[in-house]
Order: sequence, then C-alpha cells, then structure tokens
Amino acid sequence: MVIIMRSDADENSIQRVMEAVEANGLSAKVMQGAAQKIIGVIGDKEKMCCLDVESLKGVEKTVNISKNYTLVSREFHPESTVIDVDGIKIGNGNVVVMAGPCAVESKEQIMASAEIIKAGGAQFLRGGAYKPRTSPYSFQGLEELGLKYLADARERTGLKIISEVTEVENVKKVAEYVDVLQVGARNMQHFRLLKELGRQNKPVLLKRGMSATIEEWLSAAEYIVNEGNNKVILCERGIRSYESYTRNTLDLSAVAAIKHLSHLPIVVDPSHGTGKWRMVKPMAYAAVAAGADGIMMEVHPDPAVALSDGQQSLTPEHYVEVMKGIKALSGFMQDSGLYIREL
Amino acid sequence: MVIIMRSDADENSIQRVMEAVEANGLSAKVMQGAAQKIIGVIGDKEKMCCLDVESLKGVEKTVNISKNYTLVSREFHPESTVIDVDGIKIGNGNVVVMAGPCAVESKEQIMASAEIIKAGGAQFLRGGAYKPRTSPYSFQGLEELGLKYLADARERTGLKIISEVTEVENVKKVAEYVDVLQVGARNMQHFRLLKELGRQNKPVLLKRGMSATIEEWLSAAEYIVNEGNNKVILCERGIRSYESYTRNTLDLSAVAAIKHLSHLPIVVDPSHGTGKWRMVKPMAYAAVAAGADGIMMEVHPDPAVALSDGQQSLTPEHYVEVMKGIKALSGFMQDSGLYIREL
Amino acid sequence: MVIIMRSDADENSIQRVMEAVEANGLSAKVMQGAAQKIIGVIGDKEKMCCLDVESLKGVEKTVNISKNYTLVSREFHPESTVIDVDGIKIGNGNVVVMAGPCAVESKEQIMASAEIIKAGGAQFLRGGAYKPRTSPYSFQGLEELGLKYLADARERTGLKIISEVTEVENVKKVAEYVDVLQVGARNMQHFRLLKELGRQNKPVLLKRGMSATIEEWLSAAEYIVNEGNNKVILCERGIRSYESYTRNTLDLSAVAAIKHLSHLPIVVDPSHGTGKWRMVKPMAYAAVAAGADGIMMEVHPDPAVALSDGQQSLTPEHYVEVMKGIKALSGFMQDSGLYIREL
Amino acid sequence: MVIIMRSDADENSIQRVMEAVEANGLSAKVMQGAAQKIIGVIGDKEKMCCLDVESLKGVEKTVNISKNYTLVSREFHPESTVIDVDGIKIGNGNVVVMAGPCAVESKEQIMASAEIIKAGGAQFLRGGAYKPRTSPYSFQGLEELGLKYLADARERTGLKIISEVTEVENVKKVAEYVDVLQVGARNMQHFRLLKELGRQNKPVLLKRGMSATIEEWLSAAEYIVNEGNNKVILCERGIRSYESYTRNTLDLSAVAAIKHLSHLPIVVDPSHGTGKWRMVKPMAYAAVAAGADGIMMEVHPDPAVALSDGQQSLTPEHYVEVMKGIKALSGFMQDSGLYIREL
Repeated sequence: MVIIMRSDADENSIQRVMEAVEANGLSAKVMQGAAQKIIGVIGDKEKMCCLDVESLKGVEKTVNISKNYTLVSREFHPESTVIDVDGIKIGNGNVVVMAGPCAVESKEQIMASAEIIKAGGAQFLRGGAYKPRTSPYSFQGLEELGLKYLADARERTGLKIISEVTEVENVKKVAEYVDVLQVGARNMQHFRLLKELGRQNKPVLLKRGMSATIEEWLSAAEYIVNEGNNKVILCERGIRSYESYTRNTLDLSAVAAIKHLSHLPIVVDPSHGTGKWRMVKPMAYAAVAAGADGIMMEVHPDPAVALSDGQQSLTPEHYVEVMKGIKALSGFMQDSGLYIREL
Repeated sequence: MVIIMRSDADENSIQRVMEAVEANGLSAKVMQGAAQKIIGVIGDKEKMCCLDVESLKGVEKTVNISKNYTLVSREFHPESTVIDVDGIKIGNGNVVVMAGPCAVESKEQIMASAEIIKAGGAQFLRGGAYKPRTSPYSFQGLEELGLKYLADARERTGLKIISEVTEVENVKKVAEYVDVLQVGARNMQHFRLLKELGRQNKPVLLKRGMSATIEEWLSAAEYIVNEGNNKVILCERGIRSYESYTRNTLDLSAVAAIKHLSHLPIVVDPSHGTGKWRMVKPMAYAAVAAGADGIMMEVHPDPAVALSDGQQSLTPEHYVEVMKGIKALSGFMQDSGLYIREL
Repeated sequence: MVIIMRSDADENSIQRVMEAVEANGLSAKVMQGAAQKIIGVIGDKEKMCCLDVESLKGVEKTVNISKNYTLVSREFHPESTVIDVDGIKIGNGNVVVMAGPCAVESKEQIMASAEIIKAGGAQFLRGGAYKPRTSPYSFQGLEELGLKYLADARERTGLKIISEVTEVENVKKVAEYVDVLQVGARNMQHFRLLKELGRQNKPVLLKRGMSATIEEWLSAAEYIVNEGNNKVILCERGIRSYESYTRNTLDLSAVAAIKHLSHLPIVVDPSHGTGKWRMVKPMAYAAVAAGADGIMMEVHPDPAVALSDGQQSLTPEHYVEVMKGIKALSGFMQDSGLYIREL
Repeated sequence: MVIIMRSDADENSIQRVMEAVEANGLSAKVMQGAAQKIIGVIGDKEKMCCLDVESLKGVEKTVNISKNYTLVSREFHPESTVIDVDGIKIGNGNVVVMAGPCAVESKEQIMASAEIIKAGGAQFLRGGAYKPRTSPYSFQGLEELGLKYLADARERTGLKIISEVTEVENVKKVAEYVDVLQVGARNMQHFRLLKELGRQNKPVLLKRGMSATIEEWLSAAEYIVNEGNNKVILCERGIRSYESYTRNTLDLSAVAAIKHLSHLPIVVDPSHGTGKWRMVKPMAYAAVAAGADGIMMEVHPDPAVALSDGQQSLTPEHYVEVMKGIKALSGFMQDSGLYIREL
C-alpha cells in the first residue's frame, strides 16, 4: 500500500500515520519531496486489509498495490498449465473448439446439433440445461433432462460436453454428467459456488463477469484453485461498455493479459462477446492469433427458431466455414512459431 | 420489436421476413420510405423471444422495445408501494436510515455500533454476517453467529435489523433473524436466490448490480414479486464506470428513473456508491432531495480498525452530523411540498 | 511514482531500476517485503514524465501518483473562489441558474425564451449560436447572428448571457457578445482553445468531457488558469456509461469531488446529464443539496418544435415549477447551515 | 423513429401524437397489441430531427433508428475503398504498417527512428509534431520544426509520413509536409477541423474518439467525405472502459463492424489501445486476423528516455519481431483465403 499525503501535511500528521501503520504490525518508509509526501507500506496482506488511515489528518488517499491472487499467478507457477479433459488437451498450443446451441431445447435439437458440431471438427458440445435469464418469463432450461440429452449426444458422437452450473446444490449432479463445468458471467463472484467447484475433480470453465476486472477474475479463479482444483480454464466473453452496437465489448487484450499474469489457459467466446453471428468469424480468428487456447461459439441447427440468443448463433454452414478457418489459422500460428504461449 | 431492413432490401426479402414473423404467430406492419424500411412487430412477448430474423437476407438489425417486467411497473400498479417493517414505513415520504458497520466483527463491536446508530436516530442497524469478498483471503464474515449478535443488538436497542443473504440454502435461517433480507450487488441476478426470497414473508432490499441497467434491475425485482412477495425495496449503490476517483459512480438519476418506471420504494447507499467517507454527506443529501425513500450508510465505532471497507465508513461524530442533516432536509422536502413521490 | 517489481525480481534488477531513476535526477527508496518489492520515486514532475522503466527486467508495473494540476487545487488555494459576473456572484452559496433553449433558432424564439427565463427568476440566458453536432446534416447554429439575438435579449431583459465557443479563431468574437464563454464537452481537451480562453478577461464555463476523469477535467481547467484567467466555472453534464436509459449518467459525486479537490465553483446541467425533461427537476434538486453553485438547464418556448435536444427541454410551465423548487431548497440549505461550501 | 406509447395510453393520446407527426410532414403507422402500442414514423431525416413528442401525454419514449451517415456506408458504396498514398495501397488486402515514436523530439531521434522503421519493413513513419497533452506542463511538441524533421526522414528513407493536425489554422501547413493527415482521438468531433480536412487533397486517418460509438465515428468520417475528400482511413485505438489494467480497451470488434457498415479501410493502433508495449504483438496479430488494413504502432530508438508514452513503445528489437509476425500472418491470411475484405 502507498499512502499519499496532502502536500500541506505536517510532520505530526506523518508521525501519526506511521504510528497507525506500525500499530498494525506493518513497516513503512516515508519519502518526502517538495510537492509530494508518500508513505510506502509493506507487510502481511491480511494486516494491510485492516489498515484504515484515510480518515487521519493529512492523508489524501491510499493506493493498494498488492494482488488478491497468488496460486493462479505466473509468478507463482511460471509454467503454462495444460488441462487434460479425457485426452483433449487445453493450453498446449492447439485450439480447442466448444460449440453448440445456447440452450438444450429437445432431444432432437441437441442430437442434430451434436452431429453438426462433430462433423465440423469441434471437440466439445456446449448447451445450457440450467439457464439464468434476465426475465422471469424467458425459457429457463430443461434442467437435469437437458443434461441427460447432452450425455446421450456424447455417447453418440464422442464429443466432450460442457454445461453451466448455477447453484451450489446442483454441482454434484451436473458434475456427474459433464466433462467440464461452466461458471457463467453472472456467477463469477458467486463465491460459495466457486468453493464448491474447487472441491470437484472436474475442470471448470470460468467466464469473466460482465464488468469484472482482470484482477477480480483471477481472484475468482483463486477461490477455485485454493480449494484444491487447479483445472481452471478462463473464458473471455465480452465486457460491458458504453458501445451498444455490439451486445458486449469483446476484450481480446484479456488474452494477452492472462498469458502474462497467469498460467491458466484461456478460451474466447465471440458469440456472447459480440452478440452478432456475423462477427463470430473475424473475432474467432483474432482470438486465435492473439494466442487463445480455445474458442466457444453458438451454433444452432436452425437459428431462426432458437429459444434464446438466436441472433448470435451460427448456421451449420457458417459454423463449418469458421471451423475451417480456425484450424488453418491455428495450424499456421504453431508451424510459423508465431503462437504466443506466454508473455 | 422493430426490424430495420437494409436500404437496399428488395420486396422478396421483406416478404420473407413477414412470413417468418407470421409463422411465429405475431403480426407485422411494413413502413417503407425512401431511405428506410422498417417492420414493426407486435404480439406475445414469449413468441417474440423465439423470433430470430437477423440472419435473414436484407435485415440490418432488430430493436427490442418491450419490457421484461410488468408487476413492478408503475403502469401496472400506479400507486406507490409503502412497505411496513413492523411499524417503520418505507416509501411514504419519510426517509428511513439504515446504518452500521460493513461487517459484524464481534459482539462488542456490533453492540457499540448499535448504541451509536440508535442514538443518532436511524431506524435500522445493518451489518454483514455472510460477506462475499473479492479475495478468498479476506475476512468472510461470522455467519450465523453474526446474525445472533445483530438480534441481540435489536433486543437491546429496538432497532430493526437488515443483513445480506448470499445463498438459497441460508434464506430461511437469515429470515429468522432479520427484519429485512438484503440481496447484494453481486447477487442481483442470482435468480434462484431471488425466487426463494419471493416465497418469504419478509421485505427484501435488492441492491443494483455493479453494471446492471435499470431494466435488468427491475427484471430482477420482478423475479421476487412474481413468486408472491411484493415487499421489495430497491437500493442504488453505484455503478461501474471509467471514473476511478470514486469506488463506483453513484447514479442518482436512478432514483428518478425508478420513481417513474416503478411503484417500489428506493433507498440510496452513498458509502458503497462513492467509497469515500467524505462524500457520504453530500451524496446522502442529494439522494434525499432527489426523492429517495431511505439512506443506507456505513458507520463504524472506530473505522481505523474496521476489517473491511473502512475507507468508506463514517466515524460516530460524522454519522451524527449526517443524520441531523438528513432529518432536517427530509422534513423540509415534505413540508415545502418539494418531495417527489412519483414522476 | 511507485514502481512495483515482480516478486521474483532479483537484486540486480532492483539495482538497475535504481540507476535509471537516479540517472533521471530523481530519488528512490526501496521497500522489500516477502511478497512485495516496491520502489518509491520522488522529485521533479517533469523528470518523472521521462522516466520509463516498464521495459526493464523485473518491473511489473508503475503507478503514477502525482497530480497534473496545481493552480486549480484546493491545496494550492484553500479559499473557495467566487466569480463575479457583472454583479452576479457564482460560488458564494447562492445557486445561480442558467436557462434557455439548446440552440438560438430565430430572434422571435430567443426573445420569447428570454422573457420566460427572466420571469422564472434565472440570472443567465443560455443558447447555442455555434452548435457542434454529431451529424453533418443536423442544424449547425446561426453563428454570429445568434450571438446578436442573445445580446438583444440581454438588453431587453437584463439577463446575463452565456454561449459556447468552439474555435480558437472565434474566441474574441464570442467574447465581445457574451458574459460567460462556454466550452462544450467535446472541446474539454481542445487545448489551444483552452489556452486562448486563458488569455481573455471573461469567465469561462468548462463542461466536463463525455468520458473525462475528474483529474483530466481539472487539468483542462489548469490550462486556462495557467494562462492567467482564473475565472473558471466547472460544469458537470453527465458522463458516458453502459446505462442507456438516460442519455448520459449524471455524476453528482463530481460536485463533492470538486468541492474537495478544487477551489473553483461547479454548476450542474441535468438536461444534458439525463436527456429527459422529466428528470431535470429531481436532479436539479439533488445537485443543489449536494452543494452545486448553479444549475444549467434547457427550456424552450415550445419544446415540441425545438430544432435540437427537444426531448430534454422543459416547457415554460415546468421551468417555473423547477425554479421555485431550486430557490426554496437553496434558501433552506443556506439558512439551515447544511450548505456544503468545501469538503 | 419508433414512438413507444405507455400501455395505458388512450385513443386520444395516440391521435395527438399522429397529428404531431403529420404536422411535421412525416408519415406514421400505429401498431396496437394487448401490451404494446407503438407508432412507426418514416420520412425525411431532417424533419425527424425536429419532431419532439416525448413530452406529449401517453408517450413513454422514442427510439431513433435512422443512421447519421450515408456517404461512408457500405449500403451507399458497396465496394471497399482502396486508398493510394503515392503508390502505397491501403485497403487492398495488404497490411500497411505505420510506426515511429510518439513525439518528434529531435532531428537525431527521428532520423534514428526512421532508419529502424525502414529496416523493419514498415511503409510509414509516424511521429507527433503537435502534441495534445492532458497536462499543460507536459512536452507539447516541436510543431513545424518537427514536421521538417519528418520530411527530412522521408527524403533519407523513402518512408511516407503521417502526423497529427490539431487545429484548423494548421491544416494547410501540416498538409504541405505529410502524406497522411492524422486526426487524434480528442479531435474526432472537432467538426470544423473535419470539414477543413474534407477540403484537402490528402488522405486523412481518423482516430476513434475515446468514448465514441461506431455510429459517431462514422458520422465524423461523413463530415470529411461530405466536403469532398473520400480518402478517409479509420483507426481503432481503444475505448474507455472500467478496466484499468490496460490504458484503454482495444475494441477489435470495431474492425468487423466497420467492414460490415462501411467501405472505408481501417487501421488498428495496439500501442495506444493497450498502453503496454508487451501487448502490442498479440494485439497486432489479432487485428491482422480480424481483417485490419493496417497497424499503427509506437517504436522508439531508446524507449527508456522517451518524452511521452514510453511505456507503450517497442524497442527496435521488439519492433523487428512484430514486423516479421505481421508480414507472415498477413501473407497467410491472403494466401489461404481467410482474409476478410467485407462482412
């Protein structure tokens, strides 16, 4: 922590702040220039937390400089983590693709989707069984029945499956069915859910919250890893900004930030990130070039009748085209040595 | 819904869109000018949801114009709702104050706080027993023990108590202790929690999500009311913007927006809204003048040792000063006829 | 400046950073804990600017803690500034009101407006003669003719006039006509314009940029004061956020921030700040309660035919109602001692 | 425009709105369902502008659906525009690179930079001669002398030069020296400057404003094209969001949006877009994969002594590495047919 004093703060004020710092078991150094007087504080993070000097005389403000996460940081674990989902590796330079409809709507729909997804070359089938929806009057998902359909689709096609879990009490049930447990953007700071997922032996895909900073996102991942589950995959899915042309603002710089700050793999979801099917292709390519370890995208057998998020779903034809591009580009990135593993 | 066609869309494209609309059981009207061709669609909201025409030829974009909420809207229920918490009325023109520490830390601390709060004139004691924290290493709350201390404080002082509930499975337990159940900003879209709260016979204070729109906030309230509990109090607590001088950007225009769009009472939290104790007073006054039905603020017997959020907590002296101002101002607003009940 | 080192940075890295700091004529102190190594740097701001150590080995990031402004800060000039516009004082506790149409459209319109504004009790007539508009096809203002009409209206009513200047080359011309020169949000960082205004002997109202931080806004004011003109009035007019219900997000906490950080008076514009005529009243009241020194608002003789910004203009009847409320509330704030002069 | 009526609006209210619409020379159609009543309005955009019905009884809100730009839209001009800068083509599928220091600091510095830039393979040398700076105390540029140094560097190396123009009165002078005139983010809505640039016979690079929407950006371009200069290059340089890890949030989806909405070429600036030299490489690659027509980036002979923006400048070594990657990737995109010319 750095304490910035008012320029007119006198010796007594500085003295009193120093005493408060030391009373909390922390050490401080004063730096005093003509226009600036700052006090650097170091020591135990927990103690720092309890230090409140902003209401003391002469203090202008405090700046917190310590991180809220350790285990997921690259400083702590320099080697990039590769997660093995039953033979499919995430984080080793190949780009995995997770595709499928927004929601599981019926057995027919998910089976038809799975065939399309499989034929196009993705490794994962995605589909929501428990759907958090803004309006209480929107379709809320088939729940466990949806999970069963997904499992049937896996059996038929060999695709791995990923689906969202929204409640602590459903974690075990969802974990029985899926290969990867997904945490949605709205639940990124649902801390008890994160802790419960930290006790499972299944990989977790953690979507970035709608207005979460990189720091908060990594802190959320820390909750999971801190409980013992280090198989966390991060997923950038767009953040909320003033721009309304796109549904969200896809923050691809997050890929670079994560590759620098953390050892965890990162996947990008251009469907939610843009909200427009037309933009999925260019943003998928951009994500691959930035070094993303995977792409998650929405595909619907017939998007014109999708029960949710239809406007951002690819038709089967578009899906096949985007898949070809991703494969070609990701192959090129690796072969040419341009692939960015860490920064 | 309004469908905006490309200016070069031909008759065939328009025809195909019209067919899609009608195939979904909806009605449409075409308006065709020189530079604009738009198609208005009306009908059942549920059906609208399934209409996906953006991938059809000639369609530029669609604009959704229907609301996701009904029961909480002023159009549905023109009369402002007054909520009675065991004799304390919220929404009748008086300004209630909910004050106390961020977290319940110990029996001594909460008792000392309660005496201060009571003496200053607030009606509610607030304090977190279950604390959602960004970092897994921060203090997470005393849980049920904290609730017990709050109840003890109520017994001693007669203050009503309000505390946050973060999990579906804790709803009943927290409801046994508190007078008002609080939903935190991070849980505003924790839909199963909202539904569970909708089945309680206790008022719920619903904080606005960190980046929630007014529309999403009212839709979250709709989840609660739709289950049968219409005692919902909204709480503006600042939204996330680019400005970092304040912890959040307190959106006081939300008070006016709610008074226009909804019949529910609204409370303002300037402590979280600004993150700076110094700004609590001016923002509390501003909220009262805007027509807020209540103020929630953090007060700590000794903020210099608070375990969380100390920088935004008032000292007892400041609290007393702010309380006097709130009472005087709110009395003036009512007496002078300037109080804004609805817009 | 504070330099935050990677936790694995070794002695050599720290040494090299220290050398770079000292080579720039600055002083540094190292603080080294178990998990944190930080280097505090103080000295001449200009030299700090040239210090670039982020690409040195072991450096995680740098945090700039010095301010870009001095002359406009309250530390430099503790006494609140009162600006005298030909007898009308701004910043002395009274609330001045600047009202009028968005744009000067015709002599009839501005004369009719002036009569209404005068009768309602505002001190200033506002109206745009040079209009910066998003679209090249929108009405761009009557230019000098508009200024003449404003001057005519002043002669008839005795109101002071305020109008926007958008170009360096027009500064002198606009200054001949108006009592206060306005800088629009889009020009807040038009630095040559600011410098030119700094050389005039007329008060300047500086609107906050659409996405300007408090720091950038005060730095823009510093440009004007640094050239010799210390008659700067700040104007909060809403910032850009994700919320689209309102045209902008009116940041009333800026009033409190300015009262703390600066000695300059601050005015609030709830018309642009919300974009909805209905919200002008509650937000004007809130601004007054927060301590604003003035209110700027749009009024149109007949808003249903306004050439620009009609949706946010008050009708004459609403204007009169809001004026009464502002006067009563501002009188109460002063008489009761609740008025916040500085923080 | 679409007018959304309150659900309780009666026939009379609807009738009055229809009359107002028609009185403005526009046509309207009413669509009336159980829960929704909407009125579609079409006709002349200019007349629409003057229509203000929000204060009429029964009107909930109005939604504007027409665009502010025409000439720069792809609907108007379906073919992608290729701009020829003295033999260098922008927009034809090749990726041009504009590189150089943030500011021209001295003849030695710019000559050294030019040699590096040339050797690395970029086609343009960039460097600021007129620098708009947040603080009045920061280095403000060498002005005309800087332009002379740039011209000298062009003579020596054959690189084209691009530099920012900040004032109407300097347009001609800057145009004499440079090959491309740059408009900075702060000036994106400096409309008189845009008009003046519209009368030049030199290409203009128009940076996106810090918080400009795509719509506002294209409207700004329309100002230039509307005056007769259709050689406009758009440049995405990051937008302001709540995330503070990066200096701005680079919005790469803007590349896709522009390729869909407009025929103008688009360049991406990852240096300003991220503010971190480390992130320039991944974001440059991502931009190329998304279909960008060019990359603008900061390079400094010795970033550790740069007078401005040093933290985001590449060293010569990094520059050479990024250039190689851009060339390889852009070649692959074209050869493989993955290059996205339009959407």
